[in-house]
Amino acid sequence: MPAADDAAPVFDAPGRSTTARRGRPGYDQRQILEVAVQVFIEHGYDATSVSSLATRLGLSKSALYHHYESKEHLLEVALEEALGGLEAVLREPAAHEGGAGRRLGHVLRGAVMVLVDRLPYVTLLLRVRGNSDVERRALERRRAFDQEITQLVRAAQEEGSVRADVDASVATRLLFGMVNSIVEWYRPTGAEGAAELAADVLTVALDGLRPR
Amino acid sequence: MPAADDAAPVFDAPGRSTTARRGRPGYDQRQILEVAVQVFIEHGYDATSVSSLATRLGLSKSALYHHYESKEHLLEVALEEALGGLEAVLREPAAHEGGAGRRLGHVLRGAVMVLVDRLPYVTLLLRVRGNSDVERRALERRRAFDQEITQLVRAAQEEGSVRADVDASVATRLLFGMVNSIVEWYRPTGAEGAAELAADVLTVALDGLRPR
Repeated sequence: MPAADDAAPVFDAPGRSTTARRGRPGYDQRQILEVAVQVFIEHGYDATSVSSLATRLGLSKSALYHHYESKEHLLEVALEEALGGLEAVLREPAAHEGGAGRRLGHVLRGAVMVLVDRLPYVTLLLRVRGNSDVERRALERRRAFDQEITQLVRAAQEEGSVRADVDASVATRLLFGMVNSIVEWYRPTGAEGAAELAADVLTVALDGLRPR
Repeated sequence: MPAADDAAPVFDAPGRSTTARRGRPGYDQRQILEVAVQVFIEHGYDATSVSSLATRLGLSKSALYHHYESKEHLLEVALEEALGGLEAVLREPAAHEGGAGRRLGHVLRGAVMVLVDRLPYVTLLLRVRGNSDVERRALERRRAFDQEITQLVRAAQEEGSVRADVDASVATRLLFGMVNSIVEWYRPTGAEGAAELAADVLTVALDGLRPR
């Protein structure tokens, strides 16, 4: 079991920091969102109060409410970052053109790129347990995404490009177990790191670890 | 992203229930542990008080303290269930005999069996973030387990039974991303379900989804 948060990252993140902005006044809407997501991840969404967010940002509560009408609004915008990115992969032309196996590869690669590009937002999404309407709607969209992938795996099995001796929904869950684990251990280094990681995921998932 | 807790389980669990025991007096040490782990998973370890545990069990706090000296003691015993089981797989003769690829297969299969057999305990282990000495010691043991697997992957790469074009520690993290995701979606049906699941994990991880 690779240990999560405090394990030595496989890839390191030299240039990346929302920390540098903390406590500095004059946040824009986006920066507030970034800090809020960081706090939600560190302390849990339910355990975070608007007051503690305002304190962390060095803003008054009313200044914070000027940008976001509630804590749930922040969560909704954050989850949209993750879900919107993932759903956009399914709408790309390459997700609809050609054989199912090829489309599955495209979608897997795209999902990894979104995860790496929007790491904190997807991390938050993966911790959502359905305690509010916003969270339940997010889970609903995750399920719809999941179902599209399962159908893609099934279509690939039917055309013979994915082996048929593993149930399509088990295969999908194992694939995304691998993909989602990235939020636990990956630390971004930029586009190359992400592309290499996506290639590794495709290699392990489609070709397997045993040499062919 | 397959949705976690409330998604329709791929396998269902008709006969399984700690719920039936809840609120019934006369718990033994093991039953108290099972209920406590369930409560820790539902509400979070940090958010659970000894009072709320006692209430859930229908016991007085002093009756609970008769069995476990503290909340942390319960956590320690629960994490030992998970870690002890996983570490035992590494000590099995088949984890030390024969080629590294074969040993890796054995350890992966064994880890899946432990996950399924001790699902709530491993679920709890995977949520540990290192907020206390007990949690930090558990993370330390997860890391040591992880390192043994990475060494096994590396040895398998050297003997040629695992492809060498994916970094051993990335491969290990992807493998255990897949394995650990089981706690999010698997619902046990007994030994056969677990063996089939372990076979599926080995198939996807070692042979890949593309037909050979």
